[in-house]
Formats: sequence, structure tokens, C-alpha cells
Amino acid sequence: MNEQYVIGLDYGTDSARAVIVEAKTGKTIATAVKYYPRWSEGKYCNPSVNQYRQHPQDYIDVLEGTVREALAACPEGTAEKVVGMAFDTTGSTPVFTDKNGTPLSLLPEFAENPNAMFVLWKDHTAVKEAGEINELCQKWETDFSAYEGGIYSSEWYWAKALHVLREDEAVRKAAYSIVEHCEWLPALLTGVTSSDKIVRSRCACGHKAMWHPKWGGLPSEEFLVALDPLLAGFRDRLFAETETADKPVGHLTAEWAERLGLTTQVVVAGGAFDCHMGAVGAGVTPHTFVRVIGTSTCDVMVASYEEIGDNLIKGICGQVDGSVIPGMIGLEAGQSAFGDVYAWFKRILEFPLKQIVAKTQCIDEATKAKLIDEACAQIIPVLTEEAEKIPMEESTVIATDWMNGRRTPDANQLLKGTITGITLGTTAPRIFRALVEATAFGGKAIVDRFRHEGVAIDTVIGIGGIALKSPFVMQTLSDVLNMPVKVCNTDQACALGAAMFAATAAGVYPKVEEAIAAMNSGFAKEYQPNPERAAAYQSLYEQYLCVGDFTEKKLFHA
Amino acid sequence: MNEQYVIGLDYGTDSARAVIVEAKTGKTIATAVKYYPRWSEGKYCNPSVNQYRQHPQDYIDVLEGTVREALAACPEGTAEKVVGMAFDTTGSTPVFTDKNGTPLSLLPEFAENPNAMFVLWKDHTAVKEAGEINELCQKWETDFSAYEGGIYSSEWYWAKALHVLREDEAVRKAAYSIVEHCEWLPALLTGVTSSDKIVRSRCACGHKAMWHPKWGGLPSEEFLVALDPLLAGFRDRLFAETETADKPVGHLTAEWAERLGLTTQVVVAGGAFDCHMGAVGAGVTPHTFVRVIGTSTCDVMVASYEEIGDNLIKGICGQVDGSVIPGMIGLEAGQSAFGDVYAWFKRILEFPLKQIVAKTQCIDEATKAKLIDEACAQIIPVLTEEAEKIPMEESTVIATDWMNGRRTPDANQLLKGTITGITLGTTAPRIFRALVEATAFGGKAIVDRFRHEGVAIDTVIGIGGIALKSPFVMQTLSDVLNMPVKVCNTDQACALGAAMFAATAAGVYPKVEEAIAAMNSGFAKEYQPNPERAAAYQSLYEQYLCVGDFTEKKLFHA
Repeated sequence: MNEQYVIGLDYGTDSARAVIVEAKTGKTIATAVKYYPRWSEGKYCNPSVNQYRQHPQDYIDVLEGTVREALAACPEGTAEKVVGMAFDTTGSTPVFTDKNGTPLSLLPEFAENPNAMFVLWKDHTAVKEAGEINELCQKWETDFSAYEGGIYSSEWYWAKALHVLREDEAVRKAAYSIVEHCEWLPALLTGVTSSDKIVRSRCACGHKAMWHPKWGGLPSEEFLVALDPLLAGFRDRLFAETETADKPVGHLTAEWAERLGLTTQVVVAGGAFDCHMGAVGAGVTPHTFVRVIGTSTCDVMVASYEEIGDNLIKGICGQVDGSVIPGMIGLEAGQSAFGDVYAWFKRILEFPLKQIVAKTQCIDEATKAKLIDEACAQIIPVLTEEAEKIPMEESTVIATDWMNGRRTPDANQLLKGTITGITLGTTAPRIFRALVEATAFGGKAIVDRFRHEGVAIDTVIGIGGIALKSPFVMQTLSDVLNMPVKVCNTDQACALGAAMFAATAAGVYPKVEEAIAAMNSGFAKEYQPNPERAAAYQSLYEQYLCVGDFTEKKLFHA
Repeated sequence: MNEQYVIGLDYGTDSARAVIVEAKTGKTIATAVKYYPRWSEGKYCNPSVNQYRQHPQDYIDVLEGTVREALAACPEGTAEKVVGMAFDTTGSTPVFTDKNGTPLSLLPEFAENPNAMFVLWKDHTAVKEAGEINELCQKWETDFSAYEGGIYSSEWYWAKALHVLREDEAVRKAAYSIVEHCEWLPALLTGVTSSDKIVRSRCACGHKAMWHPKWGGLPSEEFLVALDPLLAGFRDRLFAETETADKPVGHLTAEWAERLGLTTQVVVAGGAFDCHMGAVGAGVTPHTFVRVIGTSTCDVMVASYEEIGDNLIKGICGQVDGSVIPGMIGLEAGQSAFGDVYAWFKRILEFPLKQIVAKTQCIDEATKAKLIDEACAQIIPVLTEEAEKIPMEESTVIATDWMNGRRTPDANQLLKGTITGITLGTTAPRIFRALVEATAFGGKAIVDRFRHEGVAIDTVIGIGGIALKSPFVMQTLSDVLNMPVKVCNTDQACALGAAMFAATAAGVYPKVEEAIAAMNSGFAKEYQPNPERAAAYQSLYEQYLCVGDFTEKKLFHA
């Protein structure tokens, strides 16, 4: 047997994992996870102003650790049979580089400067700059944000770059180019030493940097200079072309092959964002709505040209040719808070435990700590158990899921959450049930927007922690969407997707679709909508929209 | 010294108290409280359908107990110096009587029949009948509900009477007359043995039975028969005249003098509702808004004819000449939930204690019970402590106080409560603060209605449990209303008010106003509004109105 292995590397917010996969079957042989050491210490961040930066050395440190640990768990001889590797990362997570493509914070003089580090996806320091970009896009003859849903976010590439340039004179003087996290790791491992040789990610650039073939790549120099003269010259030094992640970027250098315990035969694929590779790992096909469901959701779809052509889909996070599967339009959307909504209510209910029981004198400290920990851990399970028992006709509390603003449809970070329909008899499980329904309604609003814009959806695939762990949430989602909801048979869909790209780039498969067909994990579970509940939810959903519309128009506008 | 004493008897929802007071000074000499024995066992009630009935024997049982216990605590010889007594009770709390004025449930054949008992103020079994009354009032040439705010409630006299007549054939056949709780006790103690000799309470009949001199007393026979032929004949057997509570009803009978340990020289005054006598006990004057603040509020004012004349004040609970102080218009309003809103949130936070900690195995049962009890008792104090620390500018959560519907302005029991402006950072104390603000906003809506209808208000007096116990709530009320809020120096304002009526009826004072001047308790505390917070609350109040208007018009209509 000609055994071949590929490595999927998934760089999340707090940690990275390496998954070693059998290229023919998709079977996982070994997995290893490492937490970013500097990030774990809270370094370079300032949550009070939503500043979240990551040091490139963190990414390097965990790379060797995860790959070597995973290899050590494989049968002897596996390392020699690894033919490809691919990276998915968070994004937009850009950094300024020098002319060599080296992130500035890897240079000694910038080693401790947060502005010379990767600006993590959830960094919100560039709110002002995003506002300026939106203003300019709306009056410019070409709306460069058009393929990114028409609303540029403070979480994205240009807003972050401009913010750092304005903030930091030293970085400003040294900055030559900009690179996304998912582009930098493949470049590093394949020995790229010039910023203009870095292979640019179609996914990252199309969804976050306003790159589009229609206007010849990045926004025009005139536009960028009009935004701020500090941006002058970057466009020419950046890139005109981007690549899909199925294309090889190169082979491992001798140095990296040795550091990782692999061979220089290993092909490194192009990088992309985690949710996009996650959708591939989940087996995305047209008309399937793939939801990565955790604290928030990232929702990904693919559509053929025949289906949407050059239609502009309003209020989503972008539509990019090849950002998910080459040859198809990748579509991104998402909810700003999903599991975070439940976590918020959990924190409310933790109050009597952490603020009152914690101060009691009637038991010893160790027992108290154990009691509080155990009780906190039981809040969501007990709420879920009780909420499931509430008859549908008693779901009369209506909530919105905007406790962290709204990402899609139609980004609006000023929005806030609501709970209404409260009576003196409203219990904690009833509120929890309303919150679960609210997060499902938020998902339905996205599905409805896609359908309204001509994108058909007939199935939902869920991946991520909540998809695997909460049947109540997933059944409610199925009932609210009135569609089957499938849950993948893997808790590492992003890394598995990266492995599929690695296998395709290494030539094991000619196309990503074939890698999906061979390597997918199948489904652990499929939820079917209950027709009666689906009908009842339709009318509750109309109340959700009504409450949302009111709060948006009357309370939480700028 | 010619020492004279009076007894104020305050019949609340769960218990009655007797307060023996020095007639010249208002000084309390002794107090005794007894709980209704049958009611305490939950007898004759069915909370699932909001049926709350009280047996007249409960009222008799506690009467002897409280008066004798209070007398026993007084210096020897006090009993002989008691010159008057007066009753305040809950209302509208009517019962059907026979021709002798005896409540039917005191007859052996009806002793266990809840329909033959007093229908307590909070009994909501007559919702349908109230709806019919409102419908008929609106199309009848005379709107008999006009002096009761224009919306008749299921908690009131005719709705309850009609409901019982329809429900119970046996009661229907035996029913001759109807008497309010506050009318029956004076009649009982003064030996009235004919229903047409019972002195009728201006307060009860004017606020709840649609009695008004403008149409010669009760609503016309034609109206009542049009409502339901079952009501035919009652009007003639009931009454045409009513009396204010300062007028003597009679003297104690020899039998009752002996049972209570008093003399037959004791004058019994007319009865009235607890909040109305409470307002007198609190020292009500024109332009003063007296709030009895507990689970809900009952708000009482007096106004001169010169001020409001025959203006109809919309959406309150009635305007009745002499219902509070003879010679002035008594005005009643109130919030359906006040302390109950905080109690609701407390129950939400009790969930992890009562549903999770209660099941833990890690401590013994006795310690666990103690821990849970102590923690539950600490919820409101700790929330209060933390909520007080929140800077005014961070009060961005907006709530409405309609968790139990809305009593005034403009009764609407379909309304429900709302909490909006929630972010992932919203804490339990922040929600609590918003709920406290919401209850104060609910009070402001009532004040605004009075002012809009031409009734000036310049001071607030608070009585009741919350007024005495929560400086945070009272300061917030003062800031929101932008008025001084005084708190009475007694926790027995209703009984003290009854004592003032007793002293007036007994001739110690020629007028109730003079009894107030001599016997009032003074104020324990006066809260002054903070001008900055008052200004900030004005804009939050506008948001409260906006949220309320939306939920009323779009979500919770019939």
C-alpha cells in the first residue's frame, strides 16, 4: 500500500492544533494542541480598549510543538510518508512586515511593540478607521466594499493597517508590506524571503482587503491616499494576484523539515481562514449552509456562478471566487454572539454563587470552592434540561441575540440585546429557552437574507463546540430554520479541511471536491425539524424581527 | 389629664393588626398582629385560576385576638379610656349577604362554599365579567365607569358579584345584598341586623361600585339588567347613600364590648380601604402623592374642588368625593408590581441555589439548607449594594415594570415586562438597577398623568415595607420624579390612619385634618433629588416610554 499522510494545522484564537490524517481516507491518526505562550499570559493585549495582538513567535513556538507531538503519536515511519500540509488561521489577522516579508515584531527593535505584531481578528481598535472607509466607499465612484457585503468592519485588514500607521511612528517608518497570518506561515515554511514573493490568500484578500478582479485587485491608489496619505505606496508594494488554497505554495525548507521532523518533499498549500477550511472539512456543497457554532458563528456557503453570477449579496461578510472551493463563489456570514449569549446568562446566574455563596462562613474554603465550581458547571446543563420541558405554547418570552451587536445580516455593532414578554412567573429556564430561540432566529435572519438574494439553502451542517455538545440548541435551530441540521462526526473540522487542501496541493486529489468526497468524516447526527414547532416558530420569529426592528430604529442608532 | 385612646384596626391580605393610640398625640401604646387561620392554610383558594377567597370567621377570629393582646400590653385602665375604633381593610373585597346582612358563609349551609365568602381584592376570576362591564359602559349613554378612571377592573365589586352569581346557583338563590369587607366589620360590631341598615363606605362604593351622586348612586337598574338579568333587583336592595369614614357608625354592642374587653362607649367609625386610611395616616395634603409601596403600589392623593372640579381624570383608579378626607376629592392610582419586580429577579437568581446547589452531595443537608437560606436572603441586599455603585452614565439597560400588567395610568393586564440594552458585559446588579429605575419610571408615568390632568404634585410620601427598608429604591424614586420623597416615621400608617378616623368619629377632633395635624408620626427620612441624576433620568424615562409604547402597540395587544 502506498500510504500517504497530510497534516492540517488549525490556528485558533488561543491555541493551534496539528492533525495528522490518512490522505486516502481522511482518518485522523494523531492530534496535538498547544496554547500560545505569550498570549496565555495576556501579553500585548488591553481588553479595556479591545486591543488584541499576537506575537509571531507564539505561532512559531506552537508549530514545532504540535507537529512533533502529533508525529510522536503515529506509527514509526509516518513522518516520511507526510506529503502535504496546510494552514488555516483566524482572520483578518494582519501584520506589517519589512521588505523581506518578516513581521516587524520578529526584528529585535520591535520585539515588544504590539503595533508590530499580528492584529487579531477580534481587535476593535480601528473602529474610527472603519467608519472612514465606509464613508469613503459610499461616495467613491467604485464601492470597493461591494463584494464584502457593503459594510467594512473594524476587524478587517485596511482599517487595522491604517490604525497602526496612525498610532505608531516607528512602525510607520519600518513598514514595507502587510501580510495575513494565513499567508505568512506558508511563506515562512517554504523559505520566502521577499515580501513580494508571498502567495496571497484569495480567501483573506477577497473577504477582508477589498481585493477583486473587477477593479484589478486592491482598491486604487487614489482611493487609499484619499483615505489617508499614510497609505501611499503600499498598493504597489503589496500584490495584484491572489491564489486559492488548493495550490502549492512550495516545499518545506531543509531547516523547517528538520525542525518539524518531516522531509523536504512535503508540499505546503496556500492558507485560508479557519471557518472557510472548516466548511470544506464539514463537506460543504452548494445549497448547504455550514455553521461553525461556538461563542459566535461563522457561516460559510458556496454557490456556482450559474446561481448567483455577479449579483451583489447585501449585508453579508463577502462573496469571493474561490475563497472556499476553487471555481465556486465562497460566501461568508455570521452571528456576533451565539454561545456567548448563553455564557452571558450563565454569568448572571453565577452572581449568587460567586458574589454571595463565596462570602459565606458556614463551610470551609476548600468545600466552598468545590461547591461553587460544581454549581457553575451545572448551570447550562440544568437550564437545558428544564428548558426542554417547557411546552412550545409557553414560549412567550421573546429575546434578540444582539448582546454583542450584529455581524450579519447588515453589520451593526451598536445594537444591543433584548428580553421581552416577562411576567412574574417567568423562570430562569424560560429565559434560557428564549435566548436559545433568539440565537436560532439570528441564524434564520441570515438564511432568509441569502434566500432573498437568490441563494438556495436546503440543509444546514453544524460544526464547532455547541454543534457537538447541545442537542437542545441544535434541535431548536432545526425547528426554527425548518430544515435538517447535520452535525459533523469530527470535532476538528477546520484542521480536517486544511488536511484536504494539503492533500489536493500535494496532488493526492486533482480537486478539493474529490478530497472532500474521500476524506469527509460523515455525520454524527442529523436533526429533523418538527413541523408543529416549525410553524409556531414562524410566528415567534416575526415577533423577533419586530422587536429587532424597533430596537434598531428607536433605541440603538448612532 | 383626660387621657383618651383609640384603636386602629388594619385588615391586610394575610393578617390583621390592632394599634392602640393616644388620641391626643398619635403615640402608639401597643400593637398586636394575628394571621388569618384558614387563609394561612391556603383554604378556599385556587391560585392556578387566581381564585382568592377569605372566610368571614377568619376576620372575627383575629379581631378578638389582636384587640385583647394589644390591650394586655397597655397600662392598666387603658381599656376603659378607649373612645373609638375604626377599620381599614383590603378592597374591593365584597361578599353576598342574606337579608340580615350576614355573609352567606356564616350560615351553616354555606360554611365551606368559597362563593359565599369574601372575594379578595386580588381574585381575578371575573376577567370576563369586567370585559363585559367595560363594553357596556362604553356604549351606554352614561359611562358609569367615568369616575373610576374609565376602565373597570376584574378586581372590583360588580365584576366579582356577577361572576359569583353566574357560577353558583345556591349562592344566587340565597343572595340578598352585597357588602364590602370594610363595611361589614363596623356593622357587625355595632349590632346591625338588617342589610339595608349597613353604613356604606364612600371610599369602597365610589372607587369600586360605580356609585356617584351624578347618577343618583349606583348604576341604573336598566344598565345592571342589560349586563345580566341575574343582577335584577339588587340595586333597590343595596343602597342609595354612602358615608365618609369620619362619621360614627354606632357604638360597640354589649356582646362585642365584652368579647373585646372594651366598653359600650366606644364609637365605631365608618370603614375604608387600607391605602386610603394609610394616606391619612401618612399625613396626606393636597399636592402630596402618597405611595403605599410594597409588592405593588397603591397611590393616593386628595384635591380640592377648586383644583379639579368635575374634571374626569383618565386612566386612574377613580376620583371620589370624601374617599380619603371628607370634603376633598380622593384620587387613587397604583402600579401592579413594584417590590414584586425585584422579587421576580430574586427568584431568577435563586435558580442556581434552589435547583443546583440544593442537589449537591458535597455538604450535609442541614448545612446546605442553611447555606441556601442565607444566600437567598442576601440576594437583594448584595444586588442593592452593587447597583448603587454603578455610575449613572452606565445605566444603559432599560426595563419596563409591567411584569404583572399595568394598573395605572390606563389599566392593561395584557402588558408584559421588558429588559433591553443588554450587552455581554451586563451584570446582575446592572439589571437590578434597571428594574429599580423601571419601577420609579412607572411611578413617574402616574405623576405625569395626574399633572397632565391638572393635578399639581410637589411632594411624595412613601409608606410600606419598601419605603422603610430600601434607601436605594427611595433615592432612585426621588431622582426619577425630581421631587423630595419623605418616608413616614411609622410602619403602621394604615392603622394610624384608622386611629385618626376613630378619634374624629369619637369627637376628639372635629375634622380629620385636625386629627392628622395632632396625631401624625412625622417623617423618618426625606430624600432629595440629585439634579444631575434627575436630568439624566429624564432622557432614560423617554426611552422607557418609547419601549413601553412599542411593546403595548406591537406585542401585547389583545
